[in-house]
Amino acid sequence: MQSKLFRITLNTAQPDLLLRFYTLLGFQFSQKLIDKGSQAWNGQLGDLSLEIFSIKESFSNKIPGVQMSFEVKAIDNLVQEFRLLKSQIMMEPLETKSGVISIVIDPDGRSIELIQS
Amino acid sequence: MQSKLFRITLNTAQPDLLLRFYTLLGFQFSQKLIDKGSQAWNGQLGDLSLEIFSIKESFSNKIPGVQMSFEVKAIDNLVQEFRLLKSQIMMEPLETKSGVISIVIDPDGRSIELIQS
Repeated sequence: MQSKLFRITLNTAQPDLLLRFYTLLGFQFSQKLIDKGSQAWNGQLGDLSLEIFSIKESFSNKIPGVQMSFEVKAIDNLVQEFRLLKSQIMMEPLETKSGVISIVIDPDGRSIELIQS
Repeated sequence: MQSKLFRITLNTAQPDLLLRFYTLLGFQFSQKLIDKGSQAWNGQLGDLSLEIFSIKESFSNKIPGVQMSFEVKAIDNLVQEFRLLKSQIMMEPLETKSGVISIVIDPDGRSIELIQS
């Protein structure tokens, strides 16, 4: 099964500090418009996108600090295989403007986003 | 400052589960020979390397679950800039066979490896 990591999202309660930190590595961030009053910034470095997503301090223990996003094929089959591994499926495959999206949790609790466009 | 993410390392107390999980995403893992009786596996996907590094359960709360490794230039200046940001420098720049390596900790505790080859 072929896939490609195209985005890493860092969920953080202190986005300003993270923006300064990752800017030093060469990411040039611009703020993204998103719904629901949240704040997010996106920086590109080669073909990798790094997203810094602002979360409330009170959620920072409940939300994985890192999400890796992969472009995948045959997302329904793939999610079924994750289900057979007894992985937690946070979001079943859902049609969106960006394609079909699903979120699974790896055995240690990292968040993995799957996108089939 | 130009840099490039070339490796993501997942530190885990349950490497077998992680290997099965990430194999579904297309990574083909082979075991790496490393010192000190540790175990690690490396999988390649395009130009990204995913490493699964086995740690003891008792360390799993103390070691960041994710390390991102960046190829960088002018590593000494860069580490100095991280120091000015008051980032924790876990490992000062050190000459190794692979180049000069340093490890800094991002404001949320993620581990960032810098390599100047």
